[in-house]
Amino acid sequence: MRNTSSIYSDGYQTNKESHYNMHTNSVRANNLKRMLDPKSVAVVGASGDTRKPGGRVVKYLHDKHYQGKIYPVNPKVSFVNDIKAFACLEDLPEIPDLVVISVPAAQVVPTVVSCNALGVPSVIIFSSGFSEVGTAEGLSLDEQLRDCINGSTIVSGPNCQGIINFHTGCIANFSSVMVASEIKVGSVGIVSQSGLFAALIIDSLKEKSGIGYVATTGNEIDVEFSDMVAVMAEDPKIKVIVGYLEAIRDVERFKHAARMAKKNNKPLIILKVGKTKEAARAAQSHTGALSSPAFLYESLFRSLDIIQVNDLDELNQAAYMLSLPLPRNDFSNLALLTNSGGLGVWCTDQLKFQKFELANLAGSTKDSIQSNMFAFGSADNPVDIATLAISNMPAVERILEHLYNDENVDVVFLILAFTHANASPFAQKLIDLSKKKKKTIVVCWISSDKEAQRMLENNSLPVFESATEALRALTHVRNFQHANQSDQQSVKSQLNEEAKLKVAKHLERKDKSVGEYDAMNILKAIDIPTPQIKRITEAKDVGDVYKEFNSTVVMKVDSKNIHHKSDVGGVVLGVNSESKAIDAYEKISSDVKRNCPNAIINGILMCQEVKGIAEIIVGGVRDPILGPYIMVGIGGIYAEALKDVVFRPAPISDFAASEMLKELKMYSLLTGLRGQLGCDLTELTKIISKVSDLLVEVEQLLEIDLNPVVVGSKPEQTRVVDALMTFR
Amino acid sequence: MRNTSSIYSDGYQTNKESHYNMHTNSVRANNLKRMLDPKSVAVVGASGDTRKPGGRVVKYLHDKHYQGKIYPVNPKVSFVNDIKAFACLEDLPEIPDLVVISVPAAQVVPTVVSCNALGVPSVIIFSSGFSEVGTAEGLSLDEQLRDCINGSTIVSGPNCQGIINFHTGCIANFSSVMVASEIKVGSVGIVSQSGLFAALIIDSLKEKSGIGYVATTGNEIDVEFSDMVAVMAEDPKIKVIVGYLEAIRDVERFKHAARMAKKNNKPLIILKVGKTKEAARAAQSHTGALSSPAFLYESLFRSLDIIQVNDLDELNQAAYMLSLPLPRNDFSNLALLTNSGGLGVWCTDQLKFQKFELANLAGSTKDSIQSNMFAFGSADNPVDIATLAISNMPAVERILEHLYNDENVDVVFLILAFTHANASPFAQKLIDLSKKKKKTIVVCWISSDKEAQRMLENNSLPVFESATEALRALTHVRNFQHANQSDQQSVKSQLNEEAKLKVAKHLERKDKSVGEYDAMNILKAIDIPTPQIKRITEAKDVGDVYKEFNSTVVMKVDSKNIHHKSDVGGVVLGVNSESKAIDAYEKISSDVKRNCPNAIINGILMCQEVKGIAEIIVGGVRDPILGPYIMVGIGGIYAEALKDVVFRPAPISDFAASEMLKELKMYSLLTGLRGQLGCDLTELTKIISKVSDLLVEVEQLLEIDLNPVVVGSKPEQTRVVDALMTFR
Repeated sequence: MRNTSSIYSDGYQTNKESHYNMHTNSVRANNLKRMLDPKSVAVVGASGDTRKPGGRVVKYLHDKHYQGKIYPVNPKVSFVNDIKAFACLEDLPEIPDLVVISVPAAQVVPTVVSCNALGVPSVIIFSSGFSEVGTAEGLSLDEQLRDCINGSTIVSGPNCQGIINFHTGCIANFSSVMVASEIKVGSVGIVSQSGLFAALIIDSLKEKSGIGYVATTGNEIDVEFSDMVAVMAEDPKIKVIVGYLEAIRDVERFKHAARMAKKNNKPLIILKVGKTKEAARAAQSHTGALSSPAFLYESLFRSLDIIQVNDLDELNQAAYMLSLPLPRNDFSNLALLTNSGGLGVWCTDQLKFQKFELANLAGSTKDSIQSNMFAFGSADNPVDIATLAISNMPAVERILEHLYNDENVDVVFLILAFTHANASPFAQKLIDLSKKKKKTIVVCWISSDKEAQRMLENNSLPVFESATEALRALTHVRNFQHANQSDQQSVKSQLNEEAKLKVAKHLERKDKSVGEYDAMNILKAIDIPTPQIKRITEAKDVGDVYKEFNSTVVMKVDSKNIHHKSDVGGVVLGVNSESKAIDAYEKISSDVKRNCPNAIINGILMCQEVKGIAEIIVGGVRDPILGPYIMVGIGGIYAEALKDVVFRPAPISDFAASEMLKELKMYSLLTGLRGQLGCDLTELTKIISKVSDLLVEVEQLLEIDLNPVVVGSKPEQTRVVDALMTFR
Repeated sequence: MRNTSSIYSDGYQTNKESHYNMHTNSVRANNLKRMLDPKSVAVVGASGDTRKPGGRVVKYLHDKHYQGKIYPVNPKVSFVNDIKAFACLEDLPEIPDLVVISVPAAQVVPTVVSCNALGVPSVIIFSSGFSEVGTAEGLSLDEQLRDCINGSTIVSGPNCQGIINFHTGCIANFSSVMVASEIKVGSVGIVSQSGLFAALIIDSLKEKSGIGYVATTGNEIDVEFSDMVAVMAEDPKIKVIVGYLEAIRDVERFKHAARMAKKNNKPLIILKVGKTKEAARAAQSHTGALSSPAFLYESLFRSLDIIQVNDLDELNQAAYMLSLPLPRNDFSNLALLTNSGGLGVWCTDQLKFQKFELANLAGSTKDSIQSNMFAFGSADNPVDIATLAISNMPAVERILEHLYNDENVDVVFLILAFTHANASPFAQKLIDLSKKKKKTIVVCWISSDKEAQRMLENNSLPVFESATEALRALTHVRNFQHANQSDQQSVKSQLNEEAKLKVAKHLERKDKSVGEYDAMNILKAIDIPTPQIKRITEAKDVGDVYKEFNSTVVMKVDSKNIHHKSDVGGVVLGVNSESKAIDAYEKISSDVKRNCPNAIINGILMCQEVKGIAEIIVGGVRDPILGPYIMVGIGGIYAEALKDVVFRPAPISDFAASEMLKELKMYSLLTGLRGQLGCDLTELTKIISKVSDLLVEVEQLLEIDLNPVVVGSKPEQTRVVDALMTFR
């Protein structure tokens, strides 16, 4: 029984034969490290022509003082950039850690075969002309190349721009961004599926953040985005990882990488593109990546505490601030100090929009500020020092100290504009305060004194020149710190053997769609509460079955072909006598026969009438790439108009299920709006997590839809009223 | 009858004695122009000390080569900055167009008195120490100063930073931003309630956009934000007006100014702060401005086609692009050309989020692009030229020309990154194309060739260095062009004399709150459909009244003190016989007496039962500053949880009423979701516009609430079921 073999170890499936398993292999992990930090690099296709990638790489390695061995490989020359060249890989004096291949597509496969034979740990292929060109020749070369992947020699590319290790000067990358720029070495790691986008990220981070490694992954025939994130997550030189992502290929590898980052307390910042269908189409013609729906990505990222950014600027600001050594605290209550009342008002709006609090300053703090204010200004938070920054900078320093020492303040946020008098001593005061490491000081200095700004930057204080940028970064830092305070619950399956057998039995019948009656039986088997229900196939049985209920019932047609039963006369409500039941049976039979002559009718269902307060939709879907997701939404016609639904990757715990409910826009309705009776949600959360178990354990289950689940004010009033399932 | 004297001339009230009327005065309008473009400036409090505002202004005027006459006024010196000084205003050889006052607060009033006596057209007061300090002395000086305002000498400030005219070098402003900066002279006008914020705007616009005038308005004792917008709206040197606004003081002046800008086809871009209650509080301590709710501002701005921005950067980008001479066309269909597939994908997402279309390129365009592509790339929109920008710039130029000439393309949007080869000839090609003036070309050039960038800028092509910024500007330009295509309907009141009399009669009774029965009668008088309704005050009448209905009725208590009738047992539904009506009367009487012993009961209402498809809330509110607003929302408990409501300033036309309905999130429910019967909205839109008329014509009406209005599938099924009104 394939479908019950899952392992729930730390919340994700490992039962399928995935590339991810190869990654867990320690040889592979080790080779990824060597690719990023090789002691020797061979360049196949090396040349003196720096317009060619193979020429550019040798020049970069040479110019940036790469400390390892460089082996140009080219049978036609003796030297490249004054470095001795070799005719072939086999002639090298050692097996290089990394082979960079920059030759025409047709020559790539034989070179990789050589690498495999020699036992080269890692290979990067710059060459294009494979699947991305879409020609028969390209596809054939792609297939041959795939056949060379042996799991011990790891291969990055083809059609990628390679890697960079700024710490060692190993520039195995041909981007022109390396020519022009002075790049600060630091602790940000960059992973990008697009070569040029990696260059854009380098360009945007180079001045303030400092970069450690860059990895571009191109066609991802073997090494994927996730592999490079994982290896950087474990590298002590890296503190923040940023990524450009068009699509995930293997979601388990991705989850593993994100969890590595989280475990090591490293923010993972991702710019995901291809969210709209038009952009997804463009992405497909760019890197051949197939994109899953944006809302599933969104939900996946949230579940992994990934920081999602919308553009290059936001990525840059978040990476910069998160790469600094900031003190850890609650980070919710800000004290705002400004010399522009207008900016203070503007910023207060923005802080509230981002759900920050303006700290309630202690009375003693306010008094001390007031006594330093001398003239016009405001001692309340936001503190408006007005012209004090021109007339009396030492007074500003004292005010600042009072704010820093106020227990109610988590973060001191300064917004200064055109403040140049005594800027350096003031900067020194900020530096001295920050050394106490009690709380974060963020400085936004518009049209700053450059010397003072440099002092602050050199002492690792976050400094911005735009208030919008400072606020955006601040918000990401707060979100990251708060995410790390929340515990990740591990999830244990609640499915019992009986349920598994029941589902297995259905699978033997090989029905793809499952109608209401069978679906309800499967649900009953996993202890999901359903109303009493009977299927009647002959008119003569109606009376006897009604006697079993002896209360008001609902009667409806049972057919997997009919989705909107009431639209075709397939439902009769409020049946409260034997004779009405007989009439209803006949009416449904004849209406459905007339309206849907081709539908296969399994019978007519008689169900206990269910009353409650609210109708909820609980569903599940299995994305071919991103895997199983649970959906929860508020039912009824209003909810349909609003699409008030929430998704989370399965499996989820009861706790996560209750969190999902809280994310609904209409959650306040469930708990009882304006004195109305509220729902008891305990049984509902159990239903949600059980649907999650079913979806995770039964890999053949593609879609499940409980619509509606009626919820009452007591747990026992919660019942699934209709259900549908689709299997593979 | 005060309340029927409104004039609807062009859609706004002019019946109240407002400062706005003074502005329409041609003397005042002329003096505002002279303040902004004076031929002579006297500076009272002039000095050689440039740390003082009065010193700084004389130096600025001198250094920036102000072409008018400068008259320093200071009894203690003979010369300031080598310019002859005068002891007092009376000694000057002529009446100056503008007097700048920069003396201690206590000396301001006598100086203004002199100005009045001399007939000085315009005065700016830098001095602070008035209402903004909150002291008894400050408030008293403020009052004395207000008494000096005579309507012919206009006064700006106090507590403001003055004005700047960059065209004439008239820097009657003491901001330090003028010391440091090279500022481009151009066609953007800046109006700001905050002096320092004006400096921030100057700083952000100074390089690319070019600035014409700056006006800061401070305490706005006489000249307001709106006055300066209006005068710039009529000045041919200004093409775009940008503003920093904390609060409007006189909404009619503001509307007039915004309409002037629109009439002259000038974008009015406003950064409104003080949206949250915390920020509004901060604003109050900054400029003393009282803020109305943010959603009313939002709705006011939308109705006036004002461009709302959220921060300085967005203001800057919108102003820059809108100040350029762009060809007018539909501006909806973009062709995107990039050398980064990744940026193309990212940008496609962003364009779709902003509701742009990627143009469907003509087949011939695609063919021509393909034939120029040579290598890897995409000829579809977004066009990805990949490495072609390095290898063959002339081919890129040809591709660009094909895109420009494609009839399906409104805007050509280029995103280039790190493209330096042959940049100048390429820029020249762009310039040549743009000279055809058929469509807009927008260039985002990341890490650009500076020479090429300068060429483009000098030829008025919009050039950006960040794709996010380019997109944001593009969106504002599109919105502005589309707003100007829509017609503004003028609104004529539909209220008849009978209705006016009815309302007037009520007002004579001086009741502030009006309960359901009276409110329904007022509605009936203005032809708003209400169900048949009778008020019963004695139990003995119940039977006879029921006979008049002789169908199912609803019975409810009539009391202006009870807002949620059903919560106190005040409603009985489905009364369908005389005996049930008698029971209901007794039940309501005793329940309400028990639950609300102090409520004044006017009787018990018997109403025709109304059935329909949807429940709508129609309301109106009169903001003490911003005036009357109409509100429309979807009724019922879901709507309450979601706050699905829309506001518009009254008066509104039937057409505007139907537009409001379309803005509701749940609009799809009204028109019939998934095969359900839709509502007929003709009667509902009439009700909304009639409520608007009532609110506008009856100034004593503070609040009106029709909740619910039941709407059916036919116009005659639409009925107001409950109503409340509150008068002044």
